[in-house]
Amino acid sequence: MAKMVASLSVTPLGTGSTHLSAYVRAATEVLKEMGVKYRTGAGFTDIELDDYSTLAEILKRVEDKLASMGVKRVDFIIKIDRRMDEELTIEGKISKVERR
Amino acid sequence: MAKMVASLSVTPLGTGSTHLSAYVRAATEVLKEMGVKYRTGAGFTDIELDDYSTLAEILKRVEDKLASMGVKRVDFIIKIDRRMDEELTIEGKISKVERR
Amino acid sequence: MAKMVASLSVTPLGTGSTHLSAYVRAATEVLKEMGVKYRTGAGFTDIELDDYSTLAEILKRVEDKLASMGVKRVDFIIKIDRRMDEELTIEGKISKVERR
Amino acid sequence: MAKMVASLSVTPLGTGSTHLSAYVRAATEVLKEMGVKYRTGAGFTDIELDDYSTLAEILKRVEDKLASMGVKRVDFIIKIDRRMDEELTIEGKISKVERR
Repeated sequence: MAKMVASLSVTPLGTGSTHLSAYVRAATEVLKEMGVKYRTGAGFTDIELDDYSTLAEILKRVEDKLASMGVKRVDFIIKIDRRMDEELTIEGKISKVERR
Repeated sequence: MAKMVASLSVTPLGTGSTHLSAYVRAATEVLKEMGVKYRTGAGFTDIELDDYSTLAEILKRVEDKLASMGVKRVDFIIKIDRRMDEELTIEGKISKVERR
Repeated sequence: MAKMVASLSVTPLGTGSTHLSAYVRAATEVLKEMGVKYRTGAGFTDIELDDYSTLAEILKRVEDKLASMGVKRVDFIIKIDRRMDEELTIEGKISKVERR
Repeated sequence: MAKMVASLSVTPLGTGSTHLSAYVRAATEVLKEMGVKYRTGAGFTDIELDDYSTLAEILKRVEDKLASMGVKRVDFIIKIDRRMDEELTIEGKISKVERR
């Protein structure tokens, strides 16, 4: 269970190619290394988090990894759903909408 | 195949309850009615689109549906990935990242 | 007055440079040509709109302009604040927060 | 000067009213208390940041403040423009687009 579910998109800018999946894969590797529960979508990757400092750590590590791939500028888009009245899971949110 | 993949989140405001999945389900019903290919995520629903006017129609119908449920204010967050150099699919974008 | 205030960001992908303001300026030109009321911010441009089809027209024209500049892929991020219970203006929303 | 410019929107969910500016003002108070350079827009507040942990601190303090106002659920939308090749300022980004 988690206190928040964030949806993260990572977009390297100025790379000279419209093919970006290698960079998104690299960002997903960070989530695996940190043992964060995630689910890949087409526009965003959903992430279960317990606190904002874990998010900060993810952003730092992703930046470092992209910089090592030669990226000089990156856009992060993040949507955080934070509930103080109940726990959240990625699957829980999806099944409520799809009524599984 | 589609020319763009959009990720849409629909958030009714001022409803008096933190439980919002009924409204998100109603928005998903619109996609089904319009025969739009979609995939539900925790923070966003991914949608395959061929043009911006279809997006406008989706937003209009979702607004009407939420208004019929008593909603007086709604936030839409939309991320559109538009490629002019190749076709896009939801599954295509995901499998490139997950290397299926 | 308007029924909705949208915040739009336009990001060309795969260009060979991290300098993107020329493309954002081109997108802003579209708003001027269409006579849309807007306000430039650092991450987004706020726009007053009366309907979703105007938004679709803006996106179409911006895409065409960027394509004419050689862009092959573009990310649009859009946040729409739609109120059914009262009119909205860019200045009205800002002054309520800043209590001008 | 800063290493990144973030655009932040804070939306309390489930409050019984469509009037939300009091909550946005409360979030802006946090920025003032922390001495963060910011600029209010209609949909987002632009913020100059040097690191992700400052962003995490902002989110934590805003959550605490909203919780003290009775909020049980909140949506944060964050767009971060991070440049590794040059410094960024809110005014710098705007003047490049508006050619002041």
